[in-house]
Amino acid sequence: MRALLYDERLEFCSNAPEPTPLPGEALIRVRLAGICNTDLEIVRGYLGFRGTLGHEFVGVVARADEAPEWVGKRVVGEINANCGECAACRRGDPTHCSGRTTLGIDQRDGTMADYFTLPTHLLYSVPSSIPDEWAVFTEPLAAACEITQQVHIRPTDRVVVLGDGKLGLLIAQVLQLTGCEVLSVGRHPDKLAILARRGMRTQIAQEKIVPGADVVVEATGSPEGFATARALVRPRGTLVLKSTFHADVTLDLSMVVVDEVNLVGSRCGPFLPALRLLEQRLIDVEPLIHDTFSLDDGLVAFERAASAGVLKVLLAA
Amino acid sequence: MRALLYDERLEFCSNAPEPTPLPGEALIRVRLAGICNTDLEIVRGYLGFRGTLGHEFVGVVARADEAPEWVGKRVVGEINANCGECAACRRGDPTHCSGRTTLGIDQRDGTMADYFTLPTHLLYSVPSSIPDEWAVFTEPLAAACEITQQVHIRPTDRVVVLGDGKLGLLIAQVLQLTGCEVLSVGRHPDKLAILARRGMRTQIAQEKIVPGADVVVEATGSPEGFATARALVRPRGTLVLKSTFHADVTLDLSMVVVDEVNLVGSRCGPFLPALRLLEQRLIDVEPLIHDTFSLDDGLVAFERAASAGVLKVLLAA
Repeated sequence: MRALLYDERLEFCSNAPEPTPLPGEALIRVRLAGICNTDLEIVRGYLGFRGTLGHEFVGVVARADEAPEWVGKRVVGEINANCGECAACRRGDPTHCSGRTTLGIDQRDGTMADYFTLPTHLLYSVPSSIPDEWAVFTEPLAAACEITQQVHIRPTDRVVVLGDGKLGLLIAQVLQLTGCEVLSVGRHPDKLAILARRGMRTQIAQEKIVPGADVVVEATGSPEGFATARALVRPRGTLVLKSTFHADVTLDLSMVVVDEVNLVGSRCGPFLPALRLLEQRLIDVEPLIHDTFSLDDGLVAFERAASAGVLKVLLAA
Repeated sequence: MRALLYDERLEFCSNAPEPTPLPGEALIRVRLAGICNTDLEIVRGYLGFRGTLGHEFVGVVARADEAPEWVGKRVVGEINANCGECAACRRGDPTHCSGRTTLGIDQRDGTMADYFTLPTHLLYSVPSSIPDEWAVFTEPLAAACEITQQVHIRPTDRVVVLGDGKLGLLIAQVLQLTGCEVLSVGRHPDKLAILARRGMRTQIAQEKIVPGADVVVEATGSPEGFATARALVRPRGTLVLKSTFHADVTLDLSMVVVDEVNLVGSRCGPFLPALRLLEQRLIDVEPLIHDTFSLDDGLVAFERAASAGVLKVLLAA
């Protein structure tokens, strides 16, 4: 089968071995895979992963020996394959499983291939009203929903979202649904325009931002973004960290204490709410798609995805 | 001027005196007023109010001597006129002001007239993209938003809304936006169909409802609704009381303690989020309008509003 592999460098392989599902796993035929910033970071050598890339997908179950009712179903799936037995799994926090492998990120081959495997308990059937091009956004949309899962965003809150990348645009849309006052700050007028068309307030990063926000979401991926977020949040406000940083960030922790700021780290989120929001057409993902390539052209697709100003690039398997 | 008055019985008066605004107040020319269940209860003699009825409105400021910038503006407004000096006002809870008067409900003439008065600090300018027929729903929509203001509804929560009246339908729509799984339960298939068209799950009250909900909202107005809500909420779940009852409700408080249920009473809510949701077209109020009458036909309008199965009846002044 075809696969996009990373092993010190990105390679397209036309004759990779088809994976064999382990007990409890399904074999999934990929329809679409999305290129995420994490994939770009892996290709830059940051995460130490070797194997087939990709964690965003929509596909069809080709084989599931122990759960044949899945065969033929169009699915999306959780990316953290958990053990089901550790303390985190037992307390209902499977995405924090201490023995987890992560699709295309950590010790588990990913979705940028004709086939990949995933335990069936991580799968979600996709309602027929959701087209493939939307369903492939379920995983990042779930990550956006993790913010409202963790933090009580009140309708009267003033919220600032820093970052107009793929995730920042999804986060702003999810937060808008609470009725709160969202200001999205970014560097790209064309990306911010996607939100402005939905009636949201947007601002270019260079302009002065009014401080005193109840909640600030840092989704820029840059240490400067964190410093800006810290300056914007009000005393007793909440600062949600959605970016991962590759370098240590210098942080005045005493000011966090003095202002009693609530720092919340936020990663993977719940899939079912993301599917509900897509099914009810409450989130607009289509303007985020900047290009679709065949898996055969995966190397070109990665170049395109890494270009300045480009949002989501999809791979059709 | 014309006015719909209640003084032991409902009366239409064609020559009521035009009110004179007090210092800090605006004189407002009414465009539309909505008939709420509270108005129907007043007319049934429950609340002891005498005066001009009505608290839902959209109008235009005709006079505001101390704040002339309001004149000519299309507005909606808070219904609780607060003192600004009591403990509740000082802690930022104006809707709980101990000296408040309430528009058309308590010691303050209401909006079912050509003109009424309200302090200008309670007014909100209506964005031009919101038509009058939507703006008149701002107050009940704000009351629906009060639930998400008070309670952290998580995207993964299973929520049951009991009641398919005007308020129940607005509450279900607001909760849907969180991505949570909402089940609306009511007695009227045609009203529930408004929600089903938006992709929401609905159920007729007589059918068995699966218990164990994370959050249950009681919006039926009946003591049976409270008992049902109590039976549906899970241990450590939240029961939101949105109805007012005219009789004492028998309540097994020890079961509430044993199950550690969080009982939350909920009344008036924030206006700005309600206006944002209307402006961003995230709430559908038009299917809730069952009739519009001229203020001249106010008595007929009240009969219509009190008829079984009728949702919102508007009065055009």
